[in-house]
Amino acid sequence: MTRATCVALDASDELAELRAEFTLDENEIYLDGNSLGPVSTAVRARVNAVLDDEWARGLVRGWGAGWMAEPTRIGDRIAPLIGARHGEVVVADTLTLLLAKLVGGALDLRPDRHVVLTDVANFHSDLYIIEEVCARAGRPITVRAIDRDRLDDELNDDVALVELTHVDFRTGEMLDLKGITKKVHDVGALMLWDFAHSAGAVPLDVTDAQVDFAAGCGYKYLNGGPGAPAFMYVHPQWQGTLRNPLPGWLGHARPFDFELTYEPAAGMQAFVTSTPSIIALAALDGALDVFERTTMDQIRSKSLALTDLFIELVDDRLPGVFKLVTPHDHGRRASHVALAHPEGYGIVRALIARGVVGDFRAPDICRFGFAPLYLRYVDVFDAVQRIVDVMTSESYRDPQFAVRSAVT
Amino acid sequence: MTRATCVALDASDELAELRAEFTLDENEIYLDGNSLGPVSTAVRARVNAVLDDEWARGLVRGWGAGWMAEPTRIGDRIAPLIGARHGEVVVADTLTLLLAKLVGGALDLRPDRHVVLTDVANFHSDLYIIEEVCARAGRPITVRAIDRDRLDDELNDDVALVELTHVDFRTGEMLDLKGITKKVHDVGALMLWDFAHSAGAVPLDVTDAQVDFAAGCGYKYLNGGPGAPAFMYVHPQWQGTLRNPLPGWLGHARPFDFELTYEPAAGMQAFVTSTPSIIALAALDGALDVFERTTMDQIRSKSLALTDLFIELVDDRLPGVFKLVTPHDHGRRASHVALAHPEGYGIVRALIARGVVGDFRAPDICRFGFAPLYLRYVDVFDAVQRIVDVMTSESYRDPQFAVRSAVT
Repeated sequence: MTRATCVALDASDELAELRAEFTLDENEIYLDGNSLGPVSTAVRARVNAVLDDEWARGLVRGWGAGWMAEPTRIGDRIAPLIGARHGEVVVADTLTLLLAKLVGGALDLRPDRHVVLTDVANFHSDLYIIEEVCARAGRPITVRAIDRDRLDDELNDDVALVELTHVDFRTGEMLDLKGITKKVHDVGALMLWDFAHSAGAVPLDVTDAQVDFAAGCGYKYLNGGPGAPAFMYVHPQWQGTLRNPLPGWLGHARPFDFELTYEPAAGMQAFVTSTPSIIALAALDGALDVFERTTMDQIRSKSLALTDLFIELVDDRLPGVFKLVTPHDHGRRASHVALAHPEGYGIVRALIARGVVGDFRAPDICRFGFAPLYLRYVDVFDAVQRIVDVMTSESYRDPQFAVRSAVT
Repeated sequence: MTRATCVALDASDELAELRAEFTLDENEIYLDGNSLGPVSTAVRARVNAVLDDEWARGLVRGWGAGWMAEPTRIGDRIAPLIGARHGEVVVADTLTLLLAKLVGGALDLRPDRHVVLTDVANFHSDLYIIEEVCARAGRPITVRAIDRDRLDDELNDDVALVELTHVDFRTGEMLDLKGITKKVHDVGALMLWDFAHSAGAVPLDVTDAQVDFAAGCGYKYLNGGPGAPAFMYVHPQWQGTLRNPLPGWLGHARPFDFELTYEPAAGMQAFVTSTPSIIALAALDGALDVFERTTMDQIRSKSLALTDLFIELVDDRLPGVFKLVTPHDHGRRASHVALAHPEGYGIVRALIARGVVGDFRAPDICRFGFAPLYLRYVDVFDAVQRIVDVMTSESYRDPQFAVRSAVT
């Protein structure tokens, strides 16, 4: 595999033209879109349309002119990316808050059960919010954060809910959406998936997998901006039954009647609490435009080609230097690659200084995200060359890179 | 009082030059800043600085370069507007979600008490979230939404918390911050104030009044944009004791250590749940700039002059036509004026068609907000002239105005 081969792959890449939509520094290779995606032209345009027109001219009339429907309208744009249908997705708040709504609501649907299962390798804030919501459930609930390989042993008829993150934020391992959901249903429990590292990165089909609930964030592969609003999915069988434990004005059936008692709106609108930031929603809305010019299958196909290329080049040029933590099996690999190395922290920092932006996750993982909308094959080739440079020069041992600061 | 007198008042107005910071249609008089404030030049600049620089160039490094601290940094900018000190205010989420955090946390501080008091005339979503949080408190809690004039009769040693909105969203009546807080403390209860219609409109002194908790929104008199992030205040005596019932990654003491167990950060940071929308925060940040060129006392002084002028002109030119619902007493009046009329809905709509934007609140209230940062005395004079035109012509009876639609 030579650089010329990579150039040729880019020349025949169906997604190649999408890169021009994003603002990227041509001297830098950005392999951290799994943490925060880059800004696009459409994002800038939509946000400024709100600033200069919708808000500036419409003022408070904006709510009557369309803002009220933004959470469900934008939710409907995300729906096809996860295999959901019209009216099944809404955008609001943040991922943790949407998990609070879904966990709290789901516990009400299984009032005779007392266990919630989750993954000890989950992203930590999933664990924090599950613990806290369960502590306030109004009945004793035991939260078990287990090794996910032991799920079969832990599933029984006292389990109310299972919450798992579909793609492990450290290792990049992708779980079996349909198979696990079925197992959970077989004991009468409900299934909640966290799609933080999945949405926009891998094809998902919540309808086929009969997923009960899901939530994901807008700022990773969806490129909606730092702290972008999150999204949530509720299977139609639970809509109207699942209660929002954080009810608000915008989720009321008749918000402008200002009624003393909460009555949920029909459908996903009930899960909106307050008036959402229209500026933040506009950024996410603009970011979704590019997904209409491709398909999740095309994205997946290129993603696997990029991660295959990366793994192969690292293995070829730096044999035995890193431990590949991400599964080699396509069926279990998402869109980032984790390489373990005892000097991982310094390596990631030395690479950033050489224009390859990845990130470090304790204790020893160098994490590289491959977002097919804007990355080229040649970027993968050049990134590996710079990794070779850093490892050969041992520049990662320089105290400016190797000594840990508070924020990474 | 003639138009020329108003022109003269504007000429000597110390705040007059601030109007130029806002985008306003010169053919329209905007009296709905109590619902949604207008966009300013600084808002546009700050948002575009995030889009074009902080996010575009910094990408994920933005979190290390300052974004982590935005909620407390911007909170510290709001603090002086409510009489709070450095480290006592944080910006996050939405008003309803912050009330959920404060109500849920406060109930833990009074574990032997079983009653929460609030105002039956409160904004409705305050009632919704209080009801729901109390239903999930882990012990029986009775929520009493009372006539606030009966507060003395309802206060006793079983009351855990009192939540009141400081300015009535319909009538514009302002409550006695210090006096009520003292009464609540006298029975050992905690006091939570909703500052939705107060912050940026009237001087507040949470320190002098010994307020326990407060929250407010960023999109009314603070002009932070549609659905702007909200803010919350916690008295220093409760910081470190009050738990956030919706804990998240950004509120952890060591977010980048990815610990399995939640441990709250010191101070107000503990009340941040997830990574906030940096774009939405930037808008609010820009909106606060103008407050550094004035004082809340200057704003209050002009606000009372504008509402006095409005009340006087309406009374003079349309005697007996409207019922003044807002208190005439300065000590009980905030920054909007409510006029009741059986045809209020049609009147508000006919006025919008004539370029005077107010709003309607059921059953019969025409609501006019007077934001001193950008309104002129001559605007008040011209607005009343147009009200006279509408009432004289009876254009409000036209079906295009008088027939109610779903969204107002």
